[in-house]
Amino acid sequence: MDFTTKFAGHVARVERGIERLLPPADATPGRLHEAMRYSMQAGGKRLRPVLVLATAELFDPEGRSDPLPAAVAVECIHTYSLIHDDLPCMDNDDLRRGRATCHKAFDEATALLAGDALLTHAFALLSTAYAPDPRLAVALCGQLAEAAGTGHLIGGQMLDLLYEKKPGVTAEILDQIHARKTAGMIRAPLVMGGLIGGAPPPAIDTLHAAGRHLGLAFQIVDDILDATGDATTLGKTPGKDARAGKATYVSLHGLEAARRAAGEQSAAALRALQALPGDTAFLTALVKSLDTRKA
Amino acid sequence: MDFTTKFAGHVARVERGIERLLPPADATPGRLHEAMRYSMQAGGKRLRPVLVLATAELFDPEGRSDPLPAAVAVECIHTYSLIHDDLPCMDNDDLRRGRATCHKAFDEATALLAGDALLTHAFALLSTAYAPDPRLAVALCGQLAEAAGTGHLIGGQMLDLLYEKKPGVTAEILDQIHARKTAGMIRAPLVMGGLIGGAPPPAIDTLHAAGRHLGLAFQIVDDILDATGDATTLGKTPGKDARAGKATYVSLHGLEAARRAAGEQSAAALRALQALPGDTAFLTALVKSLDTRKA
Repeated sequence: MDFTTKFAGHVARVERGIERLLPPADATPGRLHEAMRYSMQAGGKRLRPVLVLATAELFDPEGRSDPLPAAVAVECIHTYSLIHDDLPCMDNDDLRRGRATCHKAFDEATALLAGDALLTHAFALLSTAYAPDPRLAVALCGQLAEAAGTGHLIGGQMLDLLYEKKPGVTAEILDQIHARKTAGMIRAPLVMGGLIGGAPPPAIDTLHAAGRHLGLAFQIVDDILDATGDATTLGKTPGKDARAGKATYVSLHGLEAARRAAGEQSAAALRALQALPGDTAFLTALVKSLDTRKA
Repeated sequence: MDFTTKFAGHVARVERGIERLLPPADATPGRLHEAMRYSMQAGGKRLRPVLVLATAELFDPEGRSDPLPAAVAVECIHTYSLIHDDLPCMDNDDLRRGRATCHKAFDEATALLAGDALLTHAFALLSTAYAPDPRLAVALCGQLAEAAGTGHLIGGQMLDLLYEKKPGVTAEILDQIHARKTAGMIRAPLVMGGLIGGAPPPAIDTLHAAGRHLGLAFQIVDDILDATGDATTLGKTPGKDARAGKATYVSLHGLEAARRAAGEQSAAALRALQALPGDTAFLTALVKSLDTRKA
């Protein structure tokens, strides 16, 4: 099966999982469940949940533990962070993935609560779906809580806000923001997939390293696309960071150096993947496709 | 030891736990950690964490499993919900427990992220502190995620918003809002305390029932105090619900019926507690004190 077909298969599975594993839209309070589903069904690359599925498969091709609830939990966290990030008191964005943002389609209070609810639901999903294997369930909750916490995702958002309008953001500070804001939530799906597949501790360490490099590559490419992409392809307004006077990898290092750094981080991720057992062809192709993506 | 001394002892333990179990204020990003600590250290009754400690002690007076991380996790969820509830797009409150609300003391974006961070930290705490007993850790995560989710806490907030300005809120709707918004987060600490103490399944069921009655009593007394209390004692502006045209137990049923209903729910909670083993004197006194509280 070629990469594109296989990727589409994983995405379809994630989308069926979202349909099945979120509270039903007709359950009370319907408006809240509709808002959660609206944002979760807005599409996007589904990169993080696909990483969970593909990594689990690497170690356990028989699929004895279902990685789908963990994949959906990861997407819940990613989506909640986008909903809150789009709110007027944060980035104040009207458009996300080419559609109205949650607070535009509903209202601010509903969007706030829908984000809170997705964050909470991620842990509800992990602690119910993996309850028969409590050790695995706790490890997954711990990984996701760490990746979503002040040491990573939320901490990265806060640093982003703090340095947004400040001149003099150094390369070190920007690296720290990137490592927290993006890399944590790229690394966690790889590690969670490994845990579900029953990967031994050294392989978990390798997944940590691969995830970190992949996350950094992903964020640098994001910065490149913000500087060079167009709205139709991106599904969001490009050049926003530059206009907001926000430091990006491109504004600090220039386009050429950014392209080189993205390539280096991708290559480091690929080297780490080569140390893993099983058929890493899909993950390898995925890392390469992210380096050359246009959106 | 008398009730007041024992209660103060539990509160002091909770406050030491908060000090120890939240990310340090001087760790990056400091402003976010300061905002989390500001709201967690704002005092309040500490009812929910004290319920965790007192219930665990009932079943396991030796304290083999430390209930403190769970108590702090419960307070994290309660505090996050207050921070988000106070935001301009929700209740837009300037004052909480007699101090500036989080978004007034910091700013809206920081308050939003501090709430998100406390919600996330609750699950980080449970999954790390109870990792040596994975079955317990998963049960605690599951209980808290359920109590905080759209079936309870967040769902209650949403219903509250939806019916806020609508005329014709019936007694049934108000009961549902109360059961979700308050009772879930009063019941969960009792059940979590029972799980930590190793309570057998029938006792867990009894704690569920006691928690539900206590939660309903607590919310009705809240409505009574909103109608009759003064700002200095309450630490918040009374009469707010009435002025907002919001249905309360008092506005729907009158003050006398509200006092009677609170008494009945408290009595039902007390009857349930009598079915439990161990020395229930402290919990009994706690339920009685909540029925006659002035703030």
